[in-house]
Amino acid sequence: MTKLYTECVLLDHGSGGRASHDLVEALFVSRFDNDLLGALDDAAVFDVGGSKLAFTTDSYVVDPIFFPGGDIGSLAIHGTVNDLSMRGARPLYISCGFILDEGLPIADLKEIIASMDRAAREAGVQIVAGDTKVVPHGAADKVFINTAGIGLVPTGVDISGHNAKAGDAVLINGTIGDHGVAVLSKREGLAFQTQVESDSAPLNGLVAALLAANLDVHVLRDPTRGGVATTLNEIAAQSGVAIKLVEEALPYKSSVIGACEVLGLDPLYIANEGKCLVILPHAQAERALEVMRAERYGREATLIGEVAAGPAAKVYLQTKIGGSRLVDMLTGEQLPRIC
Amino acid sequence: MTKLYTECVLLDHGSGGRASHDLVEALFVSRFDNDLLGALDDAAVFDVGGSKLAFTTDSYVVDPIFFPGGDIGSLAIHGTVNDLSMRGARPLYISCGFILDEGLPIADLKEIIASMDRAAREAGVQIVAGDTKVVPHGAADKVFINTAGIGLVPTGVDISGHNAKAGDAVLINGTIGDHGVAVLSKREGLAFQTQVESDSAPLNGLVAALLAANLDVHVLRDPTRGGVATTLNEIAAQSGVAIKLVEEALPYKSSVIGACEVLGLDPLYIANEGKCLVILPHAQAERALEVMRAERYGREATLIGEVAAGPAAKVYLQTKIGGSRLVDMLTGEQLPRIC
Repeated sequence: MTKLYTECVLLDHGSGGRASHDLVEALFVSRFDNDLLGALDDAAVFDVGGSKLAFTTDSYVVDPIFFPGGDIGSLAIHGTVNDLSMRGARPLYISCGFILDEGLPIADLKEIIASMDRAAREAGVQIVAGDTKVVPHGAADKVFINTAGIGLVPTGVDISGHNAKAGDAVLINGTIGDHGVAVLSKREGLAFQTQVESDSAPLNGLVAALLAANLDVHVLRDPTRGGVATTLNEIAAQSGVAIKLVEEALPYKSSVIGACEVLGLDPLYIANEGKCLVILPHAQAERALEVMRAERYGREATLIGEVAAGPAAKVYLQTKIGGSRLVDMLTGEQLPRIC
Repeated sequence: MTKLYTECVLLDHGSGGRASHDLVEALFVSRFDNDLLGALDDAAVFDVGGSKLAFTTDSYVVDPIFFPGGDIGSLAIHGTVNDLSMRGARPLYISCGFILDEGLPIADLKEIIASMDRAAREAGVQIVAGDTKVVPHGAADKVFINTAGIGLVPTGVDISGHNAKAGDAVLINGTIGDHGVAVLSKREGLAFQTQVESDSAPLNGLVAALLAANLDVHVLRDPTRGGVATTLNEIAAQSGVAIKLVEEALPYKSSVIGACEVLGLDPLYIANEGKCLVILPHAQAERALEVMRAERYGREATLIGEVAAGPAAKVYLQTKIGGSRLVDMLTGEQLPRIC
């Protein structure tokens, strides 16, 4: 059983990396003992009255609440739409819970709500349940939003982090690290030559296109907190496989690379909010890339690696100079309040 | 259309009373324009694959996080179980989203999680999806929890705040105001002769018993923020009816009355977390009371009023001295962070 070696909650526990993983294992999964939660996928999937439903939740605490390419409102919709999509579900209904700090400008709240509405319309989901709490000034930083979502999993679809198989290809639908760099730049008031925009976007259309093409998709996962590196580590552990990434194939915006060099950050660990790792048989990779590239949020889809038999639960990077290095989960917290 | 006459979010906007109502109408319902949200019931009800599902969410920001009779964890489960139950749904699955302040003692978090687990087991629901965010110390006060829940509405059940009819009886399953007084006493360090405990409890068993008895239940509603007075005002408005309460029939613990007198609070506006208003034809009231009294959380069930034809959307109290006074929604905020 996972143990925690600290007496207090640390920022690391919210990083999405190793410490988050340990906290969830040690406190939540061990206590709320059930297979659905224990599967640790992006959404739980279960039967209700003969239908297969997906159900997920996320809280959003991003700072600043408005950033290039989005805001806490659009992010809260995209994040939950994407978590449902990553199980192959068609997102249908969203709930939202607001925690507001007394004194928040109503104009900011209006802008956030309008942004959620636009995001929900684009994704084709309905916001059907809500709750608003207000805490005395200083008890919460501006606004926190929780969204939960329900989706319908089409018959025959079984997509999970447990399904990666040796011989599979690893694809991604575009450039890595945009969201984290966009939020950080705004927060720290950094001006780079080219402004980086968050990639925050709904991925249900992309996923629907992959499923409609009858591709045998094994795994879908959005590399949010902890980035591509941590997400692939989770999949490698869940599926008991090794994953090999090709450094030269990883798509980055040059502005993101530049910002990361200045800031001393590794973009492989930076959060994305409109990216999707797609794992499926190698023979179907070309067709999948074609399908993805025809979609609005898949134009720059590319092959970045492959799944191997072992050593299990490890992720490797084949470097540009021909070496190979181990890519671990995120340890520590690079970027608090990134989503 | 409702207008807001303030430029900032006020504590009142989270009271559950008039200002909350106006905020929700002006910002949320007008923007997220759909019938399910617009119905403003405790949970949205919709069809998925031939099943009628209920879906709800609530965030919990109660201060203090541990109080007599419960804590933020048990409250977060009971609240969502009850919101589903108030639509006649059988609660099935719960998600939980934690926002933790850096530095929160792990021991506190463990205790909260254990309490959620016990509450979920008692209510027969599974916690299947979760999320944990950590914010830098001071950005959130200790811990906030969001729960969302999914329930299954049995065929033929149609319970909503819109269904109250003239001639109906208004019942409640026990004493009024316990939760609010318990939380406030702990927060303010007040010692009364008798400690008041929160009534926080899951009401799905009580509701299932009412439905199993084939009673024609029109409305169920848990009088949380804003208390019995505000909740009945909401129902009166939704159903276009008047509701008459009999002051002498309202059940209070003497300790709650005492505390309210000292504090200058009206218990009719104080939050309850294990109470349920039941509205059904008067001819079925006696039978419903029998059924409720046989349940663990209904022993002190009693008749407190009746539904009349008009004037619509008003609530009246027939006072002990024989008069009648209007009971409005809560205006202002009596007790911030009560749930």
